[in-house]
Amino acid sequence: MAELHRLPATTTDGECVFCAIGSGRAPAAFVHEDEEFVAIADLRPVTTGHLLVLPRAHAADLAALPPSAGARMFTIAQELAAALRRTDLRCEAVNLFLADGEAAGQEIPHVHLHVIPRFPGDGFVLEADWRVRSREELTEVAAQVRAAR
Amino acid sequence: MAELHRLPATTTDGECVFCAIGSGRAPAAFVHEDEEFVAIADLRPVTTGHLLVLPRAHAADLAALPPSAGARMFTIAQELAAALRRTDLRCEAVNLFLADGEAAGQEIPHVHLHVIPRFPGDGFVLEADWRVRSREELTEVAAQVRAAR
Repeated sequence: MAELHRLPATTTDGECVFCAIGSGRAPAAFVHEDEEFVAIADLRPVTTGHLLVLPRAHAADLAALPPSAGARMFTIAQELAAALRRTDLRCEAVNLFLADGEAAGQEIPHVHLHVIPRFPGDGFVLEADWRVRSREELTEVAAQVRAAR
Repeated sequence: MAELHRLPATTTDGECVFCAIGSGRAPAAFVHEDEEFVAIADLRPVTTGHLLVLPRAHAADLAALPPSAGARMFTIAQELAAALRRTDLRCEAVNLFLADGEAAGQEIPHVHLHVIPRFPGDGFVLEADWRVRSREELTEVAAQVRAAR
């Protein structure tokens, strides 16, 4: 999987780069700041206007993020998606994306939600092997998930 | 952009397919059901175990979804991501993905959040033209977004 970030995960002092940004010890272009969260412009945007919402407090992944904080992170992203549509960027659509774990493309182990404005022909492409699965297979998978909750 | 769904957006009766599933008028493999939301196995999964969280009430997109419902949708997705890691699927990671608008890959105009288990070499690939942007450009974009909030 291509990487959403190819930047160092730590500052030159060895600090988590998102902890450093969240605490003001590293620079960023902020679009949102409250007590618990910041949102910034991604330094390596997929498209112009690509934003990241992240908690100030370190949480490596979704498992480490309290559900109330996850909900709040999504609310900020939803609000930013609406704001992006009102800018002069004139995006037609928006993707929200979160990579939880290295095999999902997470490079910086501090949870963050991507807000990506979309434009026709912007070169952002998802590739996968989509195949319709049988009802039996889906029922079996669903049973596994229900049993694990 | 490749499509996450290539299925009809409506039932043979012309009803929104996710409204039909949410109301029990169309079949699906459910992994979650509450008064406001359902989660189901995606009929064309990107990977085995790919789930969708969707509100029972029709909301075409993020703009039509009350923020409290968006927060609830994320909470369910976060919980399902944890459940997926506990199943025999043994996924290593999870992506959350939402396409808001056709240019973002949304095919069924009823808002839904994808929960995609990830496995090394699973063939799900994101392609984009990642380039580091100048601080000036990021500052300008951030100013536009802040002004639009």
